[in-house]
This record gives sequence, structure tokens and C-alpha cells, in this order.
Amino acid sequence: MDNVFRLPSLHEIKKSAERISAFIHRTPVFTSGIIDEITACNIYFKCENLQKSGAFKFRGATNALLNLKDVSPNIPVTTHSSGNHAGALAKASQAIGRKCIVVMPENAPKVKIEAVKYYNAEIVFCKPTLEARESSAEKVIEETGAVLIHPYNNYHIIAGQGTAALELLEDYSELEIIIIPVGGGGLLSGSSISAKAIKPAIKVFGAEPMGADDAYRSLKAGKIIPSIKPVTIADGLLTSLGDLTFEAISSNVDDIFCVSEESIIEAMRMVWKFTKMIIEPSSAVPLAAVLENKSLFKNKKLGIIISGGNVDLNKLPF
Amino acid sequence: MDNVFRLPSLHEIKKSAERISAFIHRTPVFTSGIIDEITACNIYFKCENLQKSGAFKFRGATNALLNLKDVSPNIPVTTHSSGNHAGALAKASQAIGRKCIVVMPENAPKVKIEAVKYYNAEIVFCKPTLEARESSAEKVIEETGAVLIHPYNNYHIIAGQGTAALELLEDYSELEIIIIPVGGGGLLSGSSISAKAIKPAIKVFGAEPMGADDAYRSLKAGKIIPSIKPVTIADGLLTSLGDLTFEAISSNVDDIFCVSEESIIEAMRMVWKFTKMIIEPSSAVPLAAVLENKSLFKNKKLGIIISGGNVDLNKLPF
Repeated sequence: MDNVFRLPSLHEIKKSAERISAFIHRTPVFTSGIIDEITACNIYFKCENLQKSGAFKFRGATNALLNLKDVSPNIPVTTHSSGNHAGALAKASQAIGRKCIVVMPENAPKVKIEAVKYYNAEIVFCKPTLEARESSAEKVIEETGAVLIHPYNNYHIIAGQGTAALELLEDYSELEIIIIPVGGGGLLSGSSISAKAIKPAIKVFGAEPMGADDAYRSLKAGKIIPSIKPVTIADGLLTSLGDLTFEAISSNVDDIFCVSEESIIEAMRMVWKFTKMIIEPSSAVPLAAVLENKSLFKNKKLGIIISGGNVDLNKLPF
Repeated sequence: MDNVFRLPSLHEIKKSAERISAFIHRTPVFTSGIIDEITACNIYFKCENLQKSGAFKFRGATNALLNLKDVSPNIPVTTHSSGNHAGALAKASQAIGRKCIVVMPENAPKVKIEAVKYYNAEIVFCKPTLEARESSAEKVIEETGAVLIHPYNNYHIIAGQGTAALELLEDYSELEIIIIPVGGGGLLSGSSISAKAIKPAIKVFGAEPMGADDAYRSLKAGKIIPSIKPVTIADGLLTSLGDLTFEAISSNVDDIFCVSEESIIEAMRMVWKFTKMIIEPSSAVPLAAVLENKSLFKNKKLGIIISGGNVDLNKLPF
């Protein structure tokens, strides 16, 4: 199938924005004089940590669910995730009124399990391996006829995630660069499609931890190279690209920066301290890229999407 | 002197709001569905942690400085403070263009000293006693002719602090109750004057830690009873009322709640977790009062002013 049909266009992202608008927050954009002084550029933080469910994932999940309008409301949705997509899909399902079954590894953080339960989703626990997660999800689908909503490698998920950059550029059309964290690549795919279609001259960069640099290596190699045992504090960025997100990123992203764990923690601390916002480590990765490459960004107007704010307060890196 | 002249009126607070409007942030108001569910009421958080300098103190400091327009710009201002007033006065002085000399105890937190330095204020260190602070400030005044800007017991400071509740009630006129943390009482004084004048039927409560309950005891006794060795995690609420703030609070505040340290930490954690905002312990005291008195507030529309977000990230209570 051609890109044109496999991946959403700006037109589709705009339709998605309209579709989900009654369900999501139009999140605010924060700036910090001190961070601008430290980095010598102007940074506009799009605060998806203040999105419902505490992460941008709620946009894609809501969009995917609303696109099931021709599927009987008795058919549940399912996914396998131990992260923000699980909570987002559970909350969106509750809001829209469709049963949600989440396959979670039995060692998933207590706080994530609680969130999914709070939104009344059913949880199926499995062993903590990708194989067990996939086979458990398949079993759920077989038994219930549930529709799988993949966390990132999904047309409507990508379209939904693209609405954050759309809003950011509607509010700040003067941006010259946007930098987006990349794990599975849903947010970077959607953002890069939006941004390049709205403003072809804009630079779109991905940012990922050195310890989980599969997107960087995949882009250089021209094919998907999955992460093997990625290690990083940025727990939202452990996943590898899928075929759709690889395609979108290959077509639209100018480059990917890989950053150290030290820079991630420094950037996270800086945002906490100067914006008074709680952001999760994954969200600090783009600012870490700026801190490691100050001369590249000097005097530029930069947009950064703060992807989420779901942090275990008992396990802070400071 | 009569109250009418000693304390600002709503008219004066509105004039102050106009005067400072170009210098301050009109801070946003946050809500949380989960916190509303836990408390069984509707809480509107006015986010002064997102104010410049990270605290409501910037309103009063800016207002006091702008009221010095007849004082030669060569005359500095001074204050003694180890807390948010020091940073706010330093930042406001820098913005407005007047020299600022802050007397700080030599054991003040490093992060506060850095903030004052960052805003180019001069620091005079002294021994960590009230006597040393006052005598050092007097010496500064003698030597430089500086104008003392008291942290709370000052007409223009109280008027400036009252602008936060004014904005909150402009945005949410349906509020039935507001709860304000009380230390020296500047914020509670200004807020209670604003709120009662705008909406006489509104209930205005103060909230303070049991370990620093001088405002509660003073109100019951009908005279100022200073704190002796107050102990609380809410480091912004260690100070005792002054004569002006005692007067304002006696006239306008319906009651004061005293809360436990455990409730303060629980409330702080709840705001961090569910609103993704960093608030300092002092700001959690009103929510702690709600948690300890749920039946009193059931189904009510409550306003809470989040007073600040300046926390030492190396010394978190969780």
C-alpha cells in the first residue's frame, strides 16, 4: 500500500483534532525565562503532561476509539502496554463507553495498574515478555472479539498524536524547529506529518536516549533495527519503531539526537525547578538534546512537546 | 488610625491589580477530576506556583515597588527574609529597576540564596535569629537610606497579595468558599478583603499547620500570640501575624483550620500526582484542611490559592 493511504495526512490530522476536541484538553504552552537564558534560545513547551490521563497518548487513544463508530458498542478494545497508552486507552474507553481489556505484565508498576483499574478497565496479567504480552492479547481477541488498538503502529493513533503539534503551530506559527521524544514513534510520526505539512521549512528532530537509540540506528540504516535490552530512565521510550512509524519518520524527520542519561536527569530537574511542572523522564529528552547541542539551537525558536507527567514519586532520580 | 486607612479596600486592591498587571502573570486555575472525587467537592486551584519568582509574593513586592514612584530611583529597597519574599522582591526590583538589598540568615537554603543572586540583588548575611535579621536590616537602612519592604505587614503588600483572589473570583464567581494558607498573613489578609467585598456571602478560611498555629490561637485569644519555635514542613508558614494582618484576618476570616504534618504531605503528594504541578508544602495546607474535614466541604465549590512552588528537589518528603 502507498504511503498516502498507510499514513494520515494533515487533512486527516485536522479531522481527528475536530473529532477528539470535546474529549481532550487543549493543553497550554509554557515558557521559562531562565531556561531560555541557560539554553540561549526560545523554547515553547507544549504541556501534554497536563493532558487527560497525564500523557499525549490520550489523543491517539480517543481518536482510535471514536473511529470505531461502525463497530458494535458491545465489542471491547484491547491493548498490551505497561505504560501511558494503557491508562489513556482505559480512560478514553470509559469516557466514550466501550469495554477495555488491557494486557499488562505482572511486574508492571503498581501506580500504572492502579490507574487502569481506576478507569474501570479489565486487566489480564501475563509474564513480562513481549511474547507473553502478544499471545495474551491474541487470546483476549479470540475469546472476546476485541479490537486491538496498537500503542503507536496504527493509522488513527498516529493521526491523534499529530494533533498536539497542530495545536502548537496554530498557537506559535513562528517556530523554526520542533523536537519530539521518540520511543515507538507515534508522537514523532504524527508531529512530523503535521509540522512539515503546515510549514515545510520547519526542522523536525527526534530525541532519544543513547541507551535506547533504535530510531537513530534505524534511520541511519534505512531499515528498522529494534532495540535489544534498552536501558534508560526514560521508561516511555523503551519500545522500537513499527513499520508505519518508521515510514513516517524516514519521510519527515530531519535528524535524531541521542542523549546521555545525565543530560536527561539534568533537563528533567530544570523543567521541574523552573516551570513548576512535573514531567516524566521521557519528556525531558528533547531539552537534553538542546543542552547537549547548544550552539546548534542558538537564538532559535523551538517547540518541544512535553509528552507526559506520570512519574512514580517514590522513585525520583533526585 | 482607623482600619479604613490602615488596610487596603477592594478599590485599592483593584487599583493594585491594574498597576501590576504588566509585570505579573495572570495565573491559570486548575481542577482535577480525581481530587474532586476524593474530596467530594469541586476545587479550583489558583496557581500562584506558576507566578513569576514561583510564588504569589511577586504580586505584593511588585505593588510595593511601583508605589515608590515618588522615591528617587537611586534609593534602594531592603527586606529581611530567607523565603519567597526575598526572591520576589529581588526579581521585581530587577524588573522595575531599583537596587535591592536582602538581609538573609547565613543558614538560608542554598537554592534561595542562588535565586536572590540570580536577580542581581545584594545579599547581607547575618546570624540566623530574628534580632540579627532586624538589626542588620536597620543597619542597611541607616547606611543606604533604603526603604524597608516588610514581607506581609505592609499596606501595599497586602493590597498586592489580594489581587490573586480578585482574579480567582473574576474567573469563578460561583465559588462558595476560599481557603488560604496563613503564615504572616499577607495573602490571607488581601484575599479575605477581596473576597468578602466582592461576595459577602462567601466563606473565607485560613489553614495552618498545627505545628505553627499562631494565627488560630491569636484569633481565638483576640490578640496576637506569636509562634514560639514553630515546627512544620511548611517552611513558608513559620512566621507570626503582624498587627495589620491580625486586624484584617480578625475582621474578615470565618475560621482557621489547623492540620497535621501527615495531611500536609498527603495533600502535597495528591496535587503533584493528579495535577502534575510542583507545589511547596505550604501550598498543600488548605487541601489538607479539606481532607481532614470532608463532611464540612461536601458538594461545595471551593477556591484554593496555591501559594508557591519553590521546593528543594533534594529534600522531598517522598
